[in-house]
Amino acid sequence: MNLVDGSDFYRRLEEWLASPPPLTVVAETERSALRAEFNPHVHAGWELKLLGSGELHLVPPGVAHEATGLCPLSLEAGAGGMTLLFEGRFLFLNRPAGPRNNFLPELFALLARIPAEEERLRGQLLRAAFEAVRTLARSFESVPDAPEDRYTLALDYLKRNYYKRELGVEDLAAFIGVTPQYLNRLFRRNGGSGIRRQLIVIRLEKARELLESGNYLVSDAARLTGWSCPFYFCNSFKRHYGVPPVSVRG
Amino acid sequence: MNLVDGSDFYRRLEEWLASPPPLTVVAETERSALRAEFNPHVHAGWELKLLGSGELHLVPPGVAHEATGLCPLSLEAGAGGMTLLFEGRFLFLNRPAGPRNNFLPELFALLARIPAEEERLRGQLLRAAFEAVRTLARSFESVPDAPEDRYTLALDYLKRNYYKRELGVEDLAAFIGVTPQYLNRLFRRNGGSGIRRQLIVIRLEKARELLESGNYLVSDAARLTGWSCPFYFCNSFKRHYGVPPVSVRG
Repeated sequence: MNLVDGSDFYRRLEEWLASPPPLTVVAETERSALRAEFNPHVHAGWELKLLGSGELHLVPPGVAHEATGLCPLSLEAGAGGMTLLFEGRFLFLNRPAGPRNNFLPELFALLARIPAEEERLRGQLLRAAFEAVRTLARSFESVPDAPEDRYTLALDYLKRNYYKRELGVEDLAAFIGVTPQYLNRLFRRNGGSGIRRQLIVIRLEKARELLESGNYLVSDAARLTGWSCPFYFCNSFKRHYGVPPVSVRG
Repeated sequence: MNLVDGSDFYRRLEEWLASPPPLTVVAETERSALRAEFNPHVHAGWELKLLGSGELHLVPPGVAHEATGLCPLSLEAGAGGMTLLFEGRFLFLNRPAGPRNNFLPELFALLARIPAEEERLRGQLLRAAFEAVRTLARSFESVPDAPEDRYTLALDYLKRNYYKRELGVEDLAAFIGVTPQYLNRLFRRNGGSGIRRQLIVIRLEKARELLESGNYLVSDAARLTGWSCPFYFCNSFKRHYGVPPVSVRG
């Protein structure tokens, strides 16, 4: 689903192609140093973000990091799907990419391997990455939009933003362009429970994935999936899965 | 060993970076259609060649192809080593490349996957590849030359050109800058046998590798390793290894 017109995006892309912004490859920080108020989280795929400061951040899969404010550009490229946020709006969301148009994970993996002092090589690869983003966006344009409904769209939004502590029904309703009351009815009708409840289940599922990977403490899994209180997380987990979080740690 | 001064090369590289030549990814042709007089052969790594016509050819590993005439640029990038021929002379030869400076096999693999109609993306990736070649050449400059002798250099040359039917002792002597008589003495002293004999062994070893891979008929293995006559190949193979070629086919 192409949610906004891409012409502004393509114009800015040409500017980034002509002169790529400075790039930082984000390294793993000590998990206990991640501040809860900045919504720390972790992605299964790669994330490329252009910050308001004009700096580019490339976040490798599995690297826990704090959320940044609203970015001019934010791209997620995982095996599962591609999401592109441009100036706070989705250009595409959870779009599946095939072997013919998804070169980004490999390009990002190469980019992350190149030493920072090889500026020219990094610049050229970054240009190639921006060009691949353009190719991808264009390829989604020519695919007819799937007849997706507002509920699927809202659920996608929750699945992308689950780690945000302050995520509110109002934000979601504004994103979809309906009232909070209507949205809650939509959730109950399609998913059998209200928005809050479905968000909790999404957070529990994400936390369980982290725990099963064996790389996270229970407290880290809670912190990285939007829970402000580990005790509340443990209670919810036990109620939902019937076992305490520590028992599913891989 | 940096065999020639690179300044001309770096100047030309800037031109290719500014405007990448048109690229063809060479596809596997019917092996029986490969003409013996054009020295068909196969590489374990990637090969990038700029032809005299101004066209670039990218040859994937394992793709049998005919030799082209003298190329302005010919680059081989395998796991084992990197070789760059510029205007008929080696800029570097069989240089080992480490994970910090060898991004070419991945870049070439990506390039080969991109559909030809995605011209802009191909162009950007080609620029990145040329930039990676520059980085690689520069990195070899700063490494002190290993004290290699003429024998090692001559042997490297044979190992790279073994598939050429007309490969002569005179060519090799001219490349090293000594007389054929001196070169033969060098081979006998260091390797225990003369040039012709050592070339035959190299050809037999390459043919055996192809046979053991299970992807080649005996006649193909002979054709792809510089043998003009399959019967002569079979006899030589049996004398050297004690078994006929067909018995080592994987």
